[in-house]
Amino acid sequence: MSEFRFAVNVAPKPGILDPQGRAVEGSLGHLGVEGVTGVRVGRRVELTVEAATESEARATVDRLAHELFANPLIEAFEIERIELPAEVAR
Amino acid sequence: MSEFRFAVNVAPKPGILDPQGRAVEGSLGHLGVEGVTGVRVGRRVELTVEAATESEARATVDRLAHELFANPLIEAFEIERIELPAEVAR
Repeated sequence: MSEFRFAVNVAPKPGILDPQGRAVEGSLGHLGVEGVTGVRVGRRVELTVEAATESEARATVDRLAHELFANPLIEAFEIERIELPAEVAR
Repeated sequence: MSEFRFAVNVAPKPGILDPQGRAVEGSLGHLGVEGVTGVRVGRRVELTVEAATESEARATVDRLAHELFANPLIEAFEIERIELPAEVAR
């Protein structure tokens, strides 16, 4: 068995209202920041999976992303493999 | 001026309590999932910055990450450049 670390990036689907993103854009003027657009605020879940193969580990992550991390009706997610020194991955 | 898209990944610093991560780990048993450890739940903010150079755009993102996206006392962040077709970056 090996350990594999992943990140799941969850974001509001295109066209879905993103109130946190709008709040950020509304704050930019107060900070004197110009030229920032298209702000989307989502979640990022990092996790380590013990499995025989990376493909088996990824299947677990995919299931968790569907059932626990994202609401598939309004959110999209992508799975990212993280390569890290062993001591950081724990 | 060009447009550059970035993501800012914000996560609880090591050693800082992560109640959402613990909640996820507590749910794994109910889902019948084993072998998952080290769950950390953070935020991911994606944004487009208009600037003369990528380095200037990145400086804006760094400032926003410090002042708006992350609480530097308890959270760490990393900035990631996103290469996307122009129509998605908007």
